[in-house]
Amino acid sequence: MEFASDNTAGLSAEVSEALLTEGARFGPAYGGDQVTRDLDRLFSDLFETEVRAFPVSSGTAANGLALACVSVPHTQILCAQGAHLATDEATGPEAFTACRLTELPNVGGLIDAAGLEAKLGQHARPPHSLFPTALSVTQATETGQLYPLERLRGISRAARGHGLKLHMDGARFANALARLKATPAEGAWKVGVDVLSFGASKNGAAADAVIFFDLKAAERFERTAKRFGHTLCKTRLLSAQLAAHVHDGRWLRRAENANARAQELAAGLAGVEGMTLLYPVETNMLFVRMSLSAEAALRARGARFFVLPSDDGHVTARLVTNFQTSPDEVGRLLDAARDAA
Amino acid sequence: MEFASDNTAGLSAEVSEALLTEGARFGPAYGGDQVTRDLDRLFSDLFETEVRAFPVSSGTAANGLALACVSVPHTQILCAQGAHLATDEATGPEAFTACRLTELPNVGGLIDAAGLEAKLGQHARPPHSLFPTALSVTQATETGQLYPLERLRGISRAARGHGLKLHMDGARFANALARLKATPAEGAWKVGVDVLSFGASKNGAAADAVIFFDLKAAERFERTAKRFGHTLCKTRLLSAQLAAHVHDGRWLRRAENANARAQELAAGLAGVEGMTLLYPVETNMLFVRMSLSAEAALRARGARFFVLPSDDGHVTARLVTNFQTSPDEVGRLLDAARDAA
Amino acid sequence: MEFASDNTAGLSAEVSEALLTEGARFGPAYGGDQVTRDLDRLFSDLFETEVRAFPVSSGTAANGLALACVSVPHTQILCAQGAHLATDEATGPEAFTACRLTELPNVGGLIDAAGLEAKLGQHARPPHSLFPTALSVTQATETGQLYPLERLRGISRAARGHGLKLHMDGARFANALARLKATPAEGAWKVGVDVLSFGASKNGAAADAVIFFDLKAAERFERTAKRFGHTLCKTRLLSAQLAAHVHDGRWLRRAENANARAQELAAGLAGVEGMTLLYPVETNMLFVRMSLSAEAALRARGARFFVLPSDDGHVTARLVTNFQTSPDEVGRLLDAARDAA
Amino acid sequence: MEFASDNTAGLSAEVSEALLTEGARFGPAYGGDQVTRDLDRLFSDLFETEVRAFPVSSGTAANGLALACVSVPHTQILCAQGAHLATDEATGPEAFTACRLTELPNVGGLIDAAGLEAKLGQHARPPHSLFPTALSVTQATETGQLYPLERLRGISRAARGHGLKLHMDGARFANALARLKATPAEGAWKVGVDVLSFGASKNGAAADAVIFFDLKAAERFERTAKRFGHTLCKTRLLSAQLAAHVHDGRWLRRAENANARAQELAAGLAGVEGMTLLYPVETNMLFVRMSLSAEAALRARGARFFVLPSDDGHVTARLVTNFQTSPDEVGRLLDAARDAA
Repeated sequence: MEFASDNTAGLSAEVSEALLTEGARFGPAYGGDQVTRDLDRLFSDLFETEVRAFPVSSGTAANGLALACVSVPHTQILCAQGAHLATDEATGPEAFTACRLTELPNVGGLIDAAGLEAKLGQHARPPHSLFPTALSVTQATETGQLYPLERLRGISRAARGHGLKLHMDGARFANALARLKATPAEGAWKVGVDVLSFGASKNGAAADAVIFFDLKAAERFERTAKRFGHTLCKTRLLSAQLAAHVHDGRWLRRAENANARAQELAAGLAGVEGMTLLYPVETNMLFVRMSLSAEAALRARGARFFVLPSDDGHVTARLVTNFQTSPDEVGRLLDAARDAA
Repeated sequence: MEFASDNTAGLSAEVSEALLTEGARFGPAYGGDQVTRDLDRLFSDLFETEVRAFPVSSGTAANGLALACVSVPHTQILCAQGAHLATDEATGPEAFTACRLTELPNVGGLIDAAGLEAKLGQHARPPHSLFPTALSVTQATETGQLYPLERLRGISRAARGHGLKLHMDGARFANALARLKATPAEGAWKVGVDVLSFGASKNGAAADAVIFFDLKAAERFERTAKRFGHTLCKTRLLSAQLAAHVHDGRWLRRAENANARAQELAAGLAGVEGMTLLYPVETNMLFVRMSLSAEAALRARGARFFVLPSDDGHVTARLVTNFQTSPDEVGRLLDAARDAA
Repeated sequence: MEFASDNTAGLSAEVSEALLTEGARFGPAYGGDQVTRDLDRLFSDLFETEVRAFPVSSGTAANGLALACVSVPHTQILCAQGAHLATDEATGPEAFTACRLTELPNVGGLIDAAGLEAKLGQHARPPHSLFPTALSVTQATETGQLYPLERLRGISRAARGHGLKLHMDGARFANALARLKATPAEGAWKVGVDVLSFGASKNGAAADAVIFFDLKAAERFERTAKRFGHTLCKTRLLSAQLAAHVHDGRWLRRAENANARAQELAAGLAGVEGMTLLYPVETNMLFVRMSLSAEAALRARGARFFVLPSDDGHVTARLVTNFQTSPDEVGRLLDAARDAA
Repeated sequence: MEFASDNTAGLSAEVSEALLTEGARFGPAYGGDQVTRDLDRLFSDLFETEVRAFPVSSGTAANGLALACVSVPHTQILCAQGAHLATDEATGPEAFTACRLTELPNVGGLIDAAGLEAKLGQHARPPHSLFPTALSVTQATETGQLYPLERLRGISRAARGHGLKLHMDGARFANALARLKATPAEGAWKVGVDVLSFGASKNGAAADAVIFFDLKAAERFERTAKRFGHTLCKTRLLSAQLAAHVHDGRWLRRAENANARAQELAAGLAGVEGMTLLYPVETNMLFVRMSLSAEAALRARGARFFVLPSDDGHVTARLVTNFQTSPDEVGRLLDAARDAA
């Protein structure tokens, strides 16, 4: 019963196969190969507009490189307080961008246009306090919440009105699209996103991508990636994974599986005494308050998950479903939870 | 006839299999898995001393992170003029280390202890001109030359005498060991190396490693890697490749194949008129001066290789053999060369 | 009536004279001169312990360099939300330190040991979220508030307990000491400060200093200063100012003048209808809420000050006294305020 | 007999007076004052074209900030091997620009258009080896040599042809103009300079300036300066010095004095046996090879100068004249030299 994180899952069958095939042949290094060159066209088709697409080997690199290309050095980049960018990437964003990261107060990880406007109104004393030049939103957020598309449109309007570029950290972009029933285009550039960290490594691949809708900004990518050691000898192995990953829509069906299992889990836990869901379950994450003894009982039955400690004999357990989670696995966790109650 | 670069080759059979096996299962992210944890022991066995070993996804990252851990920020790092570090990694070394890279004059990419001593004697005006705190040597060099072990001992003595740490860029460390008939220990820490960029991606893997013999220096690795986006979600896929790669000595036999094919090629070309070898062939690279028409004839027969242009109707062709190069492939290239002459 | 800022004041008579004398003679460049060399002894006497003292030409440089010497690169530095470091130094702290600046919630710019302990308890997921290695407190704060010495002791105990070094931004350290009736030693190292940004440029000089009580940390200063362009050809002109500045205690009497004038102003304004003091006046700054018409009336009478806009027909005026402010100047401002009411 | 460096001299009378006057009054901080605002017009008049002028407190900062504004981050900046930028500014240029500094082989510190063209022709493998985006020339060079204006025109043409911006390190720009009998315009933008480090601190001031002829590039200056701690509280004191410095041409007469004394010294030493001038004396520096005993004798008579050690009983003495060097001082040094011979 693996609910620790969607990034503990392995590779999907098609990604594995692509890796094997590409690994078995010769090909130019450093992204000079045909598979990598075809990514632009592949993702342009997927997003129904002309894009530039670059494979990367980590989410921190995806975010850092994307932001470095859309921000102005020595200025500010805004994000929601508690965003992965701010809490889990050490000093990565600062290193890649030479900017300061400024966290905006928010509810549930979701910033709103009004709060953004208020913040943007304040900054007017250069060079002491520098104007922000980029904004990063996370879709879905760290607690699995989603921005409705209309809200994103409002945010991007506010950002654009002040000259900011919009980055989306889409580590779980697939889960977001699956739930919103939106196309990739609708979930990204149609709501004003300039550059997207397109996550695949929580959904069956060992690669992520940076997708530029702002083609001008993409011109900075390659030299910035090289500077920070992200021009790989075997770039083609990442590209082959990404190409297989997005082929024929199965990437969205994988995300749908994770989302559906999370719904089943949420529905089941709702009926278990002593288990309290802390946030609406919109994608593939559940945060469940439970007693220390319930936690111990679940673990004794073989469930894996992370907890955030509390101070009154309770913990908040984070349960994450993934593309391989089966209804049976959910059923067993629910059985264990009922027994633990 | 693929002689463009050893980094155009794919994955070895055992690496492919390891990737498949590891990719098919669940495992902790970010290097928290058992395979990654076992790397220290695995490489300690291989090097016959206690080491810390970290997988990385690019050679630029390996060099940058290794040097960042052994140098003092805001000082100098020395390397040979023409080293990969200096010519092919953009501003990577400076970004990772916050040091300046100073290139030492040399012959064939090989610095010598006397030249090093001369340079180290000059630097005495801090803070205007900062003392170097690290030295990087490349084994084998960009033209395939090797440092005899005794020479490395002299260099490391000189470096150590001035307080410098010694880094070895071992992108082709396997080819060097194979030719020197040295053990990993003899080729590295026994000649004074503090940290090694252990290359595997030119020899059948899609991963490299940083190996610390200076265990204290290794303490800086993880936070530096994170800052620059080199803490991967699927670190375990790199680790599994490395473990398979060094299992049972086949990595050295692969390098031996590349070296042997290079010798055959050199021997054959020696008898071809109009083909001049520019450097002794010590590992798996040949630099051959030939006419433009000979170049065209070789390409017409399907040979792939890079050239460095000259200005008198000749080019310098770089021919690189790899772990998969067959005697037959060499034979066909030689036939083509003889016909072209 | 100059109440815009204490940094708009000019040079004190003794600083001017020192500048003239030192400027008229020859002397070694880059801090190799005797005046600069004597700073260590001079400040060691002043602080009654062995210190290393370095002159700098800006407060941002003082803070950045001080923090760079006491923090570990790629980690976090903590400061109070709203600290000058966080709001007025652009991306300076990040550039000098290669750390992230994390702002702690606080009341009146004063962090407390309990809040600090709570924060320090959270950070336990390296390398994703890096441990802080330094804490910066501002004495006096941006609104002129003071940390009681006992409170600083508690903070430094908490910081030290978690391995953090303590930096004090003392841009208005003199005003703080004058009010606390503390000696320099009592206000700094005796409460656990490891390095102090010793401000003089708001108190009659055109120079500041970085004072190290942690002598080991000082070893990094010179090469870091050089890297960022803070090794001046005419360092001796800064040093001469600092030496004159702290000679015979007049620097504290200058701060006392500013503080005393602020008290007179506060006392006078307390009796003026429509003028509301927003914070306790502990040093030389007053924040006064007043109507737009009162603001206009004061300006018409020649008063200079900055305002923070409000949205209901009022502004918050910031009135800052300085070492040259006279009782007469305060009297005239009070007259104007009474007439404006 | 002070021949150690022109940067050991003090302040000129007019600079001292300006400092005193400006220091005695109030004025806005951080360059918001009228004296600073007037610098653009003042230097535009001086250079007979529209410029942006910014005061700075160190030469390293002048060079670093100038180059940061004209180069593209993560690329290369070219300079002559042995340039101050490369040998005396630690890792400053890299820190300010995020570029690598690449040194060009040269004779006497003077690069030539042909060598530059050759270098620029080589760089064509992005992202591994990044294209240069700026070139820095030093006028006069570290050994006091001058670029004839025609040669600079050739260099700037070559640079411009490859898209590089041209920076001039003019730490001794005044000495160069004085010798070339060129106007500031002729010595700078008329030969293609985009940005100039205008040195004053070796010629009677404690300030330097960055002068932008490329007005677009100037837009980056203020936020970059702030990031690195070069936005000074008392900017107006630097500005007042610069304004006094260039008033009515006396800055050029001061440089003429230094140059003339250097000529007298050179003429006198030419007749002294055992004293060999190593370079043509074109500005205010002499490099004289002499025996160790001659060196000792000169020092015994009170002469101050730096030496570069040799290994055969000789040293190379660097003798630098300055704006205050008198004919009598030169005469006394010559007497001492004759006696020492």
